[in-house]
Amino acid sequence: MVSVAINGYGTIGKRVADAVAAQKDMKIVGVSKTRPDFEARMALKKGYDLYISIPEREKLFQEAGIEISGTVEDMIDEADIIVDATPEGIGAKNLKMYREKGIKAIFQGGEKHEDIGLSFNSFTNYDDSLGADYTRVVSCNTTGLCRTLKPIDDLCGIKKVRAVMVRRAADPAQVKKGPINAIVPNPPTVPSHHGPDLKTVMYGININTVALLVPTTLMHQHNIMVELENPVDIEEIKEELNKTSRVMLVKASEGLASTAEIMEYARELGRPRNDLYEIAVWEESLNIVDGELYYMQAVHQEADAVPESVDAIRALLELEEDNKKSIEKTNKAMGIL
Amino acid sequence: MVSVAINGYGTIGKRVADAVAAQKDMKIVGVSKTRPDFEARMALKKGYDLYISIPEREKLFQEAGIEISGTVEDMIDEADIIVDATPEGIGAKNLKMYREKGIKAIFQGGEKHEDIGLSFNSFTNYDDSLGADYTRVVSCNTTGLCRTLKPIDDLCGIKKVRAVMVRRAADPAQVKKGPINAIVPNPPTVPSHHGPDLKTVMYGININTVALLVPTTLMHQHNIMVELENPVDIEEIKEELNKTSRVMLVKASEGLASTAEIMEYARELGRPRNDLYEIAVWEESLNIVDGELYYMQAVHQEADAVPESVDAIRALLELEEDNKKSIEKTNKAMGIL
Repeated sequence: MVSVAINGYGTIGKRVADAVAAQKDMKIVGVSKTRPDFEARMALKKGYDLYISIPEREKLFQEAGIEISGTVEDMIDEADIIVDATPEGIGAKNLKMYREKGIKAIFQGGEKHEDIGLSFNSFTNYDDSLGADYTRVVSCNTTGLCRTLKPIDDLCGIKKVRAVMVRRAADPAQVKKGPINAIVPNPPTVPSHHGPDLKTVMYGININTVALLVPTTLMHQHNIMVELENPVDIEEIKEELNKTSRVMLVKASEGLASTAEIMEYARELGRPRNDLYEIAVWEESLNIVDGELYYMQAVHQEADAVPESVDAIRALLELEEDNKKSIEKTNKAMGIL
Repeated sequence: MVSVAINGYGTIGKRVADAVAAQKDMKIVGVSKTRPDFEARMALKKGYDLYISIPEREKLFQEAGIEISGTVEDMIDEADIIVDATPEGIGAKNLKMYREKGIKAIFQGGEKHEDIGLSFNSFTNYDDSLGADYTRVVSCNTTGLCRTLKPIDDLCGIKKVRAVMVRRAADPAQVKKGPINAIVPNPPTVPSHHGPDLKTVMYGININTVALLVPTTLMHQHNIMVELENPVDIEEIKEELNKTSRVMLVKASEGLASTAEIMEYARELGRPRNDLYEIAVWEESLNIVDGELYYMQAVHQEADAVPESVDAIRALLELEEDNKKSIEKTNKAMGIL
């Protein structure tokens, strides 16, 4: 049983904490907050020890009646490994502290690959993180691309990928972000950073991506075009995706014709926070035209990379040499289909 | 001076009426409505004679105090040509009446190409509609594709086009349509009908399209990838698009980073209804990677094909043999940049 600490108990951190707590070979020794907000209160209610990132704010937590167990440095002393789920760019700054403390750490996709030196996906390059000190779980969008492109590449080889990433503008609870009625090329330059990011875990893949923001909060949506290396039947692709872990085929004709309906399905599954860890691929969209595979998929940005963070813990601490075994354990504990 | 009647005075019809009225070689002899609504009242205020599509509703117009000049059949008798801007699918039904009355007619992109037999774009196939009895101005999205792909094809040849069409879910005044928080593959099958539609006016082009709806009302947005026939410099592409009529390059860096900001620019232009007839191409997005051109563009769905309807009148009535001359006249009268 390894001891895991979560630095940053926000959108990702709280999900990783619950996912880790559900594993048989891991336990949570603490989570950290910068502010005494409702999430801090909920963490305590769930039985997680609470640590504070900014020692000067101890009084604020006291005044709010929220009990703390110490600072982040104290939390690190209790742990075998840190999952850093702090906001974009902060993780890279924390790396110095982790290095001084001699603790292994996992970072999120908001950090730059260059700052961490190694990136991680459970399916494409698990082995490279075995025993490493630091690794970075790629972003929700890149994780989504890995999940479906890897089995396709394994099946019939990929010559070139083009993908248009239609991104949700904000998470459901983010009330200060926009747009509320516009389409925003983001970045306005092409290609976007998503292609290069995929290459940090799926080496040598030929991909160009275009990205934009649209006024929705539920999921990202990807439009993917794959020039295939070898001829293959569309039924073989469907079969391959059907048996791929953390991927699910959905049918528009069965009332799952949009991201909203897919999230409604996730609510029916009764999981914590109605999360959907699987990448949903629209079955009707799968088509091969002139040797090129087309498909559309949806990504629950708050949740899809959470199982990968759990697998990354096993890789860094060498709890499992085989990625398939870790994936199986994670899936079982989290109830992944 | 030719006499033009507009059957259907809605989103497109009212714009075409004003555009026709602005031309020196055309006049409006009547517009039609099915209901005595605010648009009917506005038509009279503008000086257009009002005709009714459903004779049984005469009393409704009388009760509303809205003066009518007769039925659509009466209107046809006054006209040299009809622009049919009735809702999707009605135009094809009206064709029988136009045939019986022996009047030429122009249809909108909502009708099927097969039902009309001929499609029209001012830049790609003007000549084919010269003297024809009926033609169909292709949809706002297809018009948007024509406007930028034609000059690129002329400049350096096109091998293959892939385009992801991110469509506005509803027009600004449509209060009963959704989604308000979802991304909807539409259609969920790939490729979408936009590629085949482009082929009805840009013969032989190799194109596959993917389409989706997003919760915005302002503009469509296209993500276009063009494999080029011959090597070309990106500066040549920019120059070509810059001098192309009804296309404008916009800079995200100059505060035009989204569809909302582009429509704000249109409001500053002071045109009727703040319409933007030009296709806006984001200059920053233009890039050539491995012989493939990438770019993003925005389409004002209510307005962009309106000048094409005016040109189609000149083609059918053989008022201008040369498409460039018609385009020039239309542009000047409408104040197109």
